[in-house]
Amino acid sequence: MTDIHDLTRRLQRRNDSKIVLLVADGLGGLPLEPGGKTELETARTPNFDALARRGVLGLSTPVLPGIAPGSGPGHLGLFGYDPLQYEIGRGVLESLGIDFDLGPADVAIRGNFCTIDEAGLITDRRAGRIGSEIGTKLCEKLDSIEIPGVEVFVRPVKEYRLVIVFRGDGLVGNVNDTDPQRTGVPPLEPQARDEASAKTVEICTEFIRQAREILKDDAPANLLTLRGIAQLPDIPTFEQAYGTRAAAVAVYPMYRGLARLVGMDVLDAGTTLDDQMNCLEAAWDDYDFFFVHYKYTDSTGEDGNFDAKVARTEDVDAAVPRITALNPDVIIVTGDHSTPAKCKAHSWHPVPVLLAADSCRFDGSESFGEAECLRGGLGQFEAKYLMLHALAHAGRLEKFGA
Amino acid sequence: MTDIHDLTRRLQRRNDSKIVLLVADGLGGLPLEPGGKTELETARTPNFDALARRGVLGLSTPVLPGIAPGSGPGHLGLFGYDPLQYEIGRGVLESLGIDFDLGPADVAIRGNFCTIDEAGLITDRRAGRIGSEIGTKLCEKLDSIEIPGVEVFVRPVKEYRLVIVFRGDGLVGNVNDTDPQRTGVPPLEPQARDEASAKTVEICTEFIRQAREILKDDAPANLLTLRGIAQLPDIPTFEQAYGTRAAAVAVYPMYRGLARLVGMDVLDAGTTLDDQMNCLEAAWDDYDFFFVHYKYTDSTGEDGNFDAKVARTEDVDAAVPRITALNPDVIIVTGDHSTPAKCKAHSWHPVPVLLAADSCRFDGSESFGEAECLRGGLGQFEAKYLMLHALAHAGRLEKFGA
Repeated sequence: MTDIHDLTRRLQRRNDSKIVLLVADGLGGLPLEPGGKTELETARTPNFDALARRGVLGLSTPVLPGIAPGSGPGHLGLFGYDPLQYEIGRGVLESLGIDFDLGPADVAIRGNFCTIDEAGLITDRRAGRIGSEIGTKLCEKLDSIEIPGVEVFVRPVKEYRLVIVFRGDGLVGNVNDTDPQRTGVPPLEPQARDEASAKTVEICTEFIRQAREILKDDAPANLLTLRGIAQLPDIPTFEQAYGTRAAAVAVYPMYRGLARLVGMDVLDAGTTLDDQMNCLEAAWDDYDFFFVHYKYTDSTGEDGNFDAKVARTEDVDAAVPRITALNPDVIIVTGDHSTPAKCKAHSWHPVPVLLAADSCRFDGSESFGEAECLRGGLGQFEAKYLMLHALAHAGRLEKFGA
Repeated sequence: MTDIHDLTRRLQRRNDSKIVLLVADGLGGLPLEPGGKTELETARTPNFDALARRGVLGLSTPVLPGIAPGSGPGHLGLFGYDPLQYEIGRGVLESLGIDFDLGPADVAIRGNFCTIDEAGLITDRRAGRIGSEIGTKLCEKLDSIEIPGVEVFVRPVKEYRLVIVFRGDGLVGNVNDTDPQRTGVPPLEPQARDEASAKTVEICTEFIRQAREILKDDAPANLLTLRGIAQLPDIPTFEQAYGTRAAAVAVYPMYRGLARLVGMDVLDAGTTLDDQMNCLEAAWDDYDFFFVHYKYTDSTGEDGNFDAKVARTEDVDAAVPRITALNPDVIIVTGDHSTPAKCKAHSWHPVPVLLAADSCRFDGSESFGEAECLRGGLGQFEAKYLMLHALAHAGRLEKFGA
């Protein structure tokens, strides 16, 4: 199979065009009843609809038919990276999610505080779900651990969850979880899946030894397990892959981290959509590509709150005039996956896509919604091809072959 | 490329859901005249249409655009196996077609009785198309052949066609056909395509030597040629790939064999659609996935009998209420390929697909037919992805990535 980025590296053309990718997280939905309308179809979205009339619509498949993606694979697809080729380990994703500035050689680990009894057997894999305040204090204690040859970082995530990062030369992260996934047994020993990871195993073992000593009086959180031990994938940046200077205008750490992963500059985007629009305007001259992320279409879907998701969709629509006033050459509105309120979860349903540019072939769309997208000019396509559409409409791709 | 089953193994989730895959063989058709209706569109199918109104439609491509599949690849695709990755040799397919219980190490061969003259040259590659009764008697004679180190099975298929199976340790089936594909020349010698197949060549050679002696007075069937020498593909079972307990409710040996190939339990399904529905009801509590196969939409298509294919399509439709009464979580109606009466043969035309489940995104379909399928929510997709859709709608797949 051809690597998309081998192609874009060869064909990339730099120019003054501007591309905006506006991601309403979990945008795709479902009607509550057969014959009904989805959240997006229910929402009053005059600005999306105006874009639809001059652009083209379609439906994207984030990973494969039937596969519901997490935020990581969902965004990698939108950014033009095959999510099956570039898998992001749990440790890395957790680090991104707390805005930890992970380096390319760092080993990142998701930790869980747990409870062990006097025999060393796990009695609670989540340490009685201790509060975040306790978790944060325990992380501060663990952050004092010193291991020769590496830097050790321990950061709280939430409640019993934490992140551990080892930074040093020659670390490889192919190490098994120490969480046995059940109680009544001791934690597993860290074990390397390849020779190159032997050093990481030594460091994990020493870390656990010291942590056991430090936490011994902190029941129910008197030990921790290590999970999802991983390193950043070796992934080309936006600059390398597409020749674009890219910026992320995102509020939530996870999405800022995913943007950093592909080499975007992560801007100070504030906390509201208004803040994000201010940020976009201020940075407009400095970048070619802008990833604008909005979270609440997803979280309302996860809550199963159809009406709230409709309202949040309308909020995103209301931000569009400030984007179009900047006169981008290409504007895309889409989601990283569907989160139908009916499902209260990420789902596998194809994701609505709207692309507006002067070079669009008119497809007769009148409004932005799943049913119109099904008949749209982009057809149904794999999300990893979206960036090719964006670059093409921005005049940023040379002809292939003579 | 990612192997679909690597993914489904990782993501499989077991639950109490039930999936029914109702295959009307050769379902896709063609209108007899431009602007006319296909067999499926002509048929009165109130039950399919009711499912279409609450489900989604689409068109599947069994192998690749323009490729008309045999029953083997057609069904492998429906079962979620890439038919280009898992090729089923002719010898294996013939064995499955006579309900022979082929073992994983067996070498299966399709044989043709032929006629040779005194010089040993083939004068008729099909032995004057002898009747099945003669073929059966000759197979009984050949079944007495004994070769040290292997068990030998010889079974009639039909007329001049037979199946030979060698069972023993260390057999590999990469051996060329002995049928020279023309008359006036002697049969070819069996030849190994790799070193591991040397033993199989020895056994084939000895088998032919004895057969020549046994058949010498049975002209026109005084010898046989060996074709499609093959072994079962190394294929994950439904249980392994999807975590489902799967059952086949199929009448014809070929389809029972294909189901057995992927590890389904093959139930005693009787001979009529009514028998099959009784079988389905009786087994309902014991399985998660049911493959129900109906043959006559294909055979009437092969006969070029448009009206009969319409009538057989209506017969399948009439069976639907007994399935929906069982309240499956997912019901799929489709074919393994198209067999338009106009073509009198399997064709490459995309195959109508109907999937109904509570989690469908309404696509506005009013009835089940090729034209509606072209506008359906599933779009046009490769048949190998159908199982992902089925599993997703049954809640049997975890989210991919975090």
